[in-house]
Amino acid sequence: MNNNNQDQKLWTGVIEENQSNDLLDLFNNSLKFDYKLWHYDIQCSQAHANMLAKQQIITQEDNQQIQSGLQTIYKEIQNNPEQWLQNNIQYEDIHSAIEFNLTNLIGDAGKRLHTGRSRNDQVATDLRLYTRDQINILIKLLQELLAVFDDLIARDKEIIIPGYTHLQQAQPVTLAHHWHAHYQRFNRDLDRFQNSLQRVNICPLGAGALAGTTFNIDRDMTAKELGFDKPTKNSLDSVSDRDFVAECIFNNSLVMTHLSQLSEELIIWASQEFQFIKLHPNYATGSSMMPQKRNPDIPELLRAKTGRVNGNLINILTVLKALPMAYNKDLQEDKECLFDTIEHTVLSLQISLKFLPSISINQQRLNEVVNNSYMPATDIADWLVSKKNLTFRDAYKVVGQIVYYCLEHKYNLQDIKLNKYQEFCPDITEDIYTILDPVNCVKQRNSYGGTGNI
Amino acid sequence: MNNNNQDQKLWTGVIEENQSNDLLDLFNNSLKFDYKLWHYDIQCSQAHANMLAKQQIITQEDNQQIQSGLQTIYKEIQNNPEQWLQNNIQYEDIHSAIEFNLTNLIGDAGKRLHTGRSRNDQVATDLRLYTRDQINILIKLLQELLAVFDDLIARDKEIIIPGYTHLQQAQPVTLAHHWHAHYQRFNRDLDRFQNSLQRVNICPLGAGALAGTTFNIDRDMTAKELGFDKPTKNSLDSVSDRDFVAECIFNNSLVMTHLSQLSEELIIWASQEFQFIKLHPNYATGSSMMPQKRNPDIPELLRAKTGRVNGNLINILTVLKALPMAYNKDLQEDKECLFDTIEHTVLSLQISLKFLPSISINQQRLNEVVNNSYMPATDIADWLVSKKNLTFRDAYKVVGQIVYYCLEHKYNLQDIKLNKYQEFCPDITEDIYTILDPVNCVKQRNSYGGTGNI
Amino acid sequence: MNNNNQDQKLWTGVIEENQSNDLLDLFNNSLKFDYKLWHYDIQCSQAHANMLAKQQIITQEDNQQIQSGLQTIYKEIQNNPEQWLQNNIQYEDIHSAIEFNLTNLIGDAGKRLHTGRSRNDQVATDLRLYTRDQINILIKLLQELLAVFDDLIARDKEIIIPGYTHLQQAQPVTLAHHWHAHYQRFNRDLDRFQNSLQRVNICPLGAGALAGTTFNIDRDMTAKELGFDKPTKNSLDSVSDRDFVAECIFNNSLVMTHLSQLSEELIIWASQEFQFIKLHPNYATGSSMMPQKRNPDIPELLRAKTGRVNGNLINILTVLKALPMAYNKDLQEDKECLFDTIEHTVLSLQISLKFLPSISINQQRLNEVVNNSYMPATDIADWLVSKKNLTFRDAYKVVGQIVYYCLEHKYNLQDIKLNKYQEFCPDITEDIYTILDPVNCVKQRNSYGGTGNI
Amino acid sequence: MNNNNQDQKLWTGVIEENQSNDLLDLFNNSLKFDYKLWHYDIQCSQAHANMLAKQQIITQEDNQQIQSGLQTIYKEIQNNPEQWLQNNIQYEDIHSAIEFNLTNLIGDAGKRLHTGRSRNDQVATDLRLYTRDQINILIKLLQELLAVFDDLIARDKEIIIPGYTHLQQAQPVTLAHHWHAHYQRFNRDLDRFQNSLQRVNICPLGAGALAGTTFNIDRDMTAKELGFDKPTKNSLDSVSDRDFVAECIFNNSLVMTHLSQLSEELIIWASQEFQFIKLHPNYATGSSMMPQKRNPDIPELLRAKTGRVNGNLINILTVLKALPMAYNKDLQEDKECLFDTIEHTVLSLQISLKFLPSISINQQRLNEVVNNSYMPATDIADWLVSKKNLTFRDAYKVVGQIVYYCLEHKYNLQDIKLNKYQEFCPDITEDIYTILDPVNCVKQRNSYGGTGNI
Repeated sequence: MNNNNQDQKLWTGVIEENQSNDLLDLFNNSLKFDYKLWHYDIQCSQAHANMLAKQQIITQEDNQQIQSGLQTIYKEIQNNPEQWLQNNIQYEDIHSAIEFNLTNLIGDAGKRLHTGRSRNDQVATDLRLYTRDQINILIKLLQELLAVFDDLIARDKEIIIPGYTHLQQAQPVTLAHHWHAHYQRFNRDLDRFQNSLQRVNICPLGAGALAGTTFNIDRDMTAKELGFDKPTKNSLDSVSDRDFVAECIFNNSLVMTHLSQLSEELIIWASQEFQFIKLHPNYATGSSMMPQKRNPDIPELLRAKTGRVNGNLINILTVLKALPMAYNKDLQEDKECLFDTIEHTVLSLQISLKFLPSISINQQRLNEVVNNSYMPATDIADWLVSKKNLTFRDAYKVVGQIVYYCLEHKYNLQDIKLNKYQEFCPDITEDIYTILDPVNCVKQRNSYGGTGNI
Repeated sequence: MNNNNQDQKLWTGVIEENQSNDLLDLFNNSLKFDYKLWHYDIQCSQAHANMLAKQQIITQEDNQQIQSGLQTIYKEIQNNPEQWLQNNIQYEDIHSAIEFNLTNLIGDAGKRLHTGRSRNDQVATDLRLYTRDQINILIKLLQELLAVFDDLIARDKEIIIPGYTHLQQAQPVTLAHHWHAHYQRFNRDLDRFQNSLQRVNICPLGAGALAGTTFNIDRDMTAKELGFDKPTKNSLDSVSDRDFVAECIFNNSLVMTHLSQLSEELIIWASQEFQFIKLHPNYATGSSMMPQKRNPDIPELLRAKTGRVNGNLINILTVLKALPMAYNKDLQEDKECLFDTIEHTVLSLQISLKFLPSISINQQRLNEVVNNSYMPATDIADWLVSKKNLTFRDAYKVVGQIVYYCLEHKYNLQDIKLNKYQEFCPDITEDIYTILDPVNCVKQRNSYGGTGNI
Repeated sequence: MNNNNQDQKLWTGVIEENQSNDLLDLFNNSLKFDYKLWHYDIQCSQAHANMLAKQQIITQEDNQQIQSGLQTIYKEIQNNPEQWLQNNIQYEDIHSAIEFNLTNLIGDAGKRLHTGRSRNDQVATDLRLYTRDQINILIKLLQELLAVFDDLIARDKEIIIPGYTHLQQAQPVTLAHHWHAHYQRFNRDLDRFQNSLQRVNICPLGAGALAGTTFNIDRDMTAKELGFDKPTKNSLDSVSDRDFVAECIFNNSLVMTHLSQLSEELIIWASQEFQFIKLHPNYATGSSMMPQKRNPDIPELLRAKTGRVNGNLINILTVLKALPMAYNKDLQEDKECLFDTIEHTVLSLQISLKFLPSISINQQRLNEVVNNSYMPATDIADWLVSKKNLTFRDAYKVVGQIVYYCLEHKYNLQDIKLNKYQEFCPDITEDIYTILDPVNCVKQRNSYGGTGNI
Repeated sequence: MNNNNQDQKLWTGVIEENQSNDLLDLFNNSLKFDYKLWHYDIQCSQAHANMLAKQQIITQEDNQQIQSGLQTIYKEIQNNPEQWLQNNIQYEDIHSAIEFNLTNLIGDAGKRLHTGRSRNDQVATDLRLYTRDQINILIKLLQELLAVFDDLIARDKEIIIPGYTHLQQAQPVTLAHHWHAHYQRFNRDLDRFQNSLQRVNICPLGAGALAGTTFNIDRDMTAKELGFDKPTKNSLDSVSDRDFVAECIFNNSLVMTHLSQLSEELIIWASQEFQFIKLHPNYATGSSMMPQKRNPDIPELLRAKTGRVNGNLINILTVLKALPMAYNKDLQEDKECLFDTIEHTVLSLQISLKFLPSISINQQRLNEVVNNSYMPATDIADWLVSKKNLTFRDAYKVVGQIVYYCLEHKYNLQDIKLNKYQEFCPDITEDIYTILDPVNCVKQRNSYGGTGNI
């Protein structure tokens, strides 16, 4: 980032003519992606000009002209951002585009706006404003997602599904308990974003190119006007710190990881073999010829987009590796990975909010599966130990023999008559059939955090 | 990917109305990025239709209509791709956009084009055509880059620079030798791309949705017409294989790694402290006020873009992890990371081709540095061993004492008088001053691959 | 890497005493991991000494002592590597450990071994020897894995399974066809390793510290004796090139990705809901109490270990990013990620060779699933088009209505009587029941690469 | 993870004999790395047994035996961990190794320890105890590092160095200001670890295999005894959550990134061309023959180890991607990446604590550089604007011409006589020489956070 002069390049030299060509512009210029920051760049300039005026570094008249000019540009962009981008595509970045537009509009006063700041602190400020806003959007979306899970939990307290380890049926749990587990994950994501805000919401404006400025600026004032908690403490760090970008992307990595885990389950549950759920046709791609087939495109894309965000994380970490103080052009590569991450995580959360409640639970199939499994085996053993005073070793042996017998004869545990049970262990009594009931299995696991305790 | 029917969605159901909304389209649709494949999609359809006609699966008349319709669409897109994209943005992907346009244009014959293929093999074919073309472009660019290095090598055979280990001056080398080292790196990249071609240039067209087709198609014919070496051997693999995407991105990772290594050197060399090179004002950003300052934005961006490509590599590897057969919607996430990688590596190579020859070598400064270093220390030791019959241990000891004496008195090795040298070791003779000459140091290292052997 | 003198540190200074402490050694020393290269380091030294003798740089007597000393050390390490490591743990790396042992054993001749080489080219040579051997092991393991698949393909030609897209049953395929798809993947891996060998099998020995050597060495001779194709061409590149490490890790990334994809399927297939396969108790962890439960620990670990190898890939790419010429200590971090990758991929392939043939296919369950699916829907439509002259649109409509009717009444396609079929479409004839037979569906897809064509 | 019975494998079946072989054990067993958790595993068992006794699930006598047995094992391991590992290498993991040892020692009471818990919640608890301890160690090390920077800041307030953008000299700053920028980075790292603690320090013990337990356990009691803030809220989440592993590794990624950035500067500063610093021989590898050469091995390794930690981050994120509830064996791959990250970051911080204060600052060289640069150009322009009432445009033009003149004639700004200055601009007065003084440049930039404000 550099000083300014004329034309479209702020840094065009007085002496040697820069003959930069299209290729170079294509390579160097960031307007095509950083124009997304236009809103924040104007906001930042407004606060800066107000401060300059208050500190009598520029006159009130200059400030009025600047504010009015920035308003005009704001409206023009807001009105048709794409058109404005096309009209200004020759500029190097959003900061110069707006500054040249301002100078064209209001003349010399526009040039005074850059007093006491540089593009290095300006771009850092813009990016923090953007990140803060996006984190707040993500926090809101996560809260909405938690509310969706709350509804599902309330709805599905009586539905029993197999709980899995190693994708093997292990112990029955309520579907509510399962949703509640997902709730915990996203709740931690929320927590992480809230923690991050305190590191994002600090104002680098006024750090100058790298060393501060000789002008008598008031950094507290600009920080406050822009809604920051405080100004940053060190000018070199202010213009080079992109930790908040990496941290924000990482937090999104875990959000997407959690969505991928949920999605994996839904894809498996929607298979013809599981049939635990049925996707709503609005949220699945179908086939006119095979109405039974509903492709879970949404959870598949959610699952896949984890790769994108993890990739963006490696991108920024690789950019930052071994970068010396202070600003280096490498930092221009901080934006696209952040924007892409935010865009796709926000979209993924938005779609999840609608997709999750649209899923139908196939209770009939779940009943069938839960009532025809050997999942209560553990409960029989626990019952033999605690009520019938068998040792663990003996209880396990008995249960193993029972299940093996069932497997061989393709019986369910419920199919076995009491006298047959008593052949395996004479201590078994009639109430074993209560133990075998999945509803009972769930209820019994009522330790704190257990499926019977929700 | 699915079967087709009507409207903008090929899969819209006959029975349940799909009320997909904007959000869903935004999430699901790939046209906004896969439209880049339009050229390949048409090419693929042309070959397919020709084959269908030859195999009498469709009539010659149908084929003529299809070919003519595809030509019309081709010209329309070519004429104004952006406009065409805007006009067709409602379609799910480039394949349906073109197919609907074709059907609108030529009626029922258009629908017959999809006989004996599915979107799954079609998209795989398009992506291989794209990747093949891009690899060929990358190969050509790498060859041009090698030619640039050849020129630099020819030019800089007599310029001596410090060779470094640990960024410490170690032994003098020619600048030509240094360029030649970079040549080796990019030459390996070239090699890798050439190896990859054989795995890319295989035709999946005709694999159907996943299992092949019941139609009597001729896969050899389409493969040949599209310039592929042969058809793929297994239909399940054909529609799910994206190894070639990961491999292509990885090859680009190493290209960018090599550019980052070269760039790091150039950035350091352009510092005021090194001053080994001076950047051309056309390829550096300057400041009107500080004409001495030329910011190495180009090598900085080249260095940073390594992160982007490494990130894209993690993206595709994460997408592919644990994905079961055959086509899954996750694979839609294969394109943007590939396109982004290609776009930035191509641009990086193009800019390097122009940037490298534009750099001025500061010979005066290099002479000064090379002639005021202790780099010849190793040469003195070697000389004492091989010509003066000292043991290595003794020779090293002598040289260590000499250098230490120089350091203490801020002398160069050349400043020391012969009698002083002889105080350290009486065997030292007048010809030590030849040994100290960096030109001689370089010449002496004439083992194969050594700096005196180029 | 540096020059040598005395004690355990080859670089200990003559003048300033290095008081490096335990912490520093722990941080700097590489012996704890690079001792794995002992075999290659000795091999490399043997070739180097033979060459030095042939070139009369050392005497035949020195060479004989060196060869004999190296033999002694070789046997000592081979006899008990762990013990030897403990006895020599004070050395900085394997190269100094062996060199000091040699000098202790044979005196001054040992010191002459280092003539005309440095640790920089030595370590590069060792690592290439290691990588070459490991690639050859991986190639052999992949060939064995392909042979396993060949057996499975031969065995399972008549077993029909559902073919999936989006994990939704789509079209029936033979299990042989499915194994054949996996065959293709690992076959490409094999191909990639074979391509890589040509870039690995080049000899950097004699490149010196960075610039070549002043001694009259014969690099062709050492290259040949060590089984390399040729010596490297540029000394700077020779000591800094680690492309072959990154390339080797990447190739392993795809091997592990392929294993993760296969594993994911096996885990899903082993679930109680799919029940397509049954794991052998030798290769699954079970529970005495729940004999029906067999945890697929092996495929789960195979799936997870992809993360490790992808992580190692990012490790080396991050290390290499922006590293200037020539040798930098950063390159010491090249080994652990390579060793870890090789160790786990080799183990993963070895276990796969035994695990895959041990899996039982549950044919009864597969028959049940395949014969109770709507997968033949596409076949009916194709049949109506090609044999009954319906248009595609009409055929699709008919089939959609049939399937929807089946879904509503919980019928299979085979359950529908002919006259009911004819209500949907009067053109339907008795031979529709042949079309519905999954065996027929498979046979009909006999296009090249299709499931009926294997 | 599974239930238990006999022998070395807790899950060995009663019916089918498990013939697992060496290869399988090598692949499956985790003892070789998870034995590091021995301390936490015993701690966890102590708390669990105390709770079981208090809840009367086991007797006080059993508990006394368990506590005493665990004490014995604790001392045995503590006494010689490596030996103990060798003696117990046949066990699957640390949990079974300790449990079998306990049962061998105290008989049946040992088996009752596993009541009301499973390996799934046990391993999650152990890992959280480990992570909590390690984070506290990292926090302490970061605090010590900040104290080191505090000392450097206090020491180097008067030393002026060039401040850089794009590695081009831009504006002078104090070295204290530079250290202070690094302080900010590590201070954020500290902050992140402190935030993470609240998500780590939650107790999963009692979550059972996945669904809670039927025993009347008191999770608050075990949580409290183990120093956790509270028990986890959901059993499925408790056994599958590894977010805290990913978050901890990410925090370390940024620590290593910051060390890599600092290291890069030190490596460059230690070059013969910069000569800003001189490494202490204790913390640099030298050469007996070239005493002037001190290889910055420590900062090079610090720089490189970023790759390792970033790789570990990708490892865990890849493992977690798309993993369904609840425990899957994939999670066994969570440990090595975490252990490796912690080990290397702790070591890196420890070495940094000693290395940083050992560096000598070359003030003479810094004076020379700072006084012979064109860095005051900006200050002249600012001065002309604010004191001499030139417009920015005019001031910049004047300064550009002055610097260009100096460049052409190889003058410093201080070399120019006043009357020459006045040729460029008649408003220039004698006090320009104050403006040119780097000390003044620094002092003037006294805005909050600026280099003159520290």
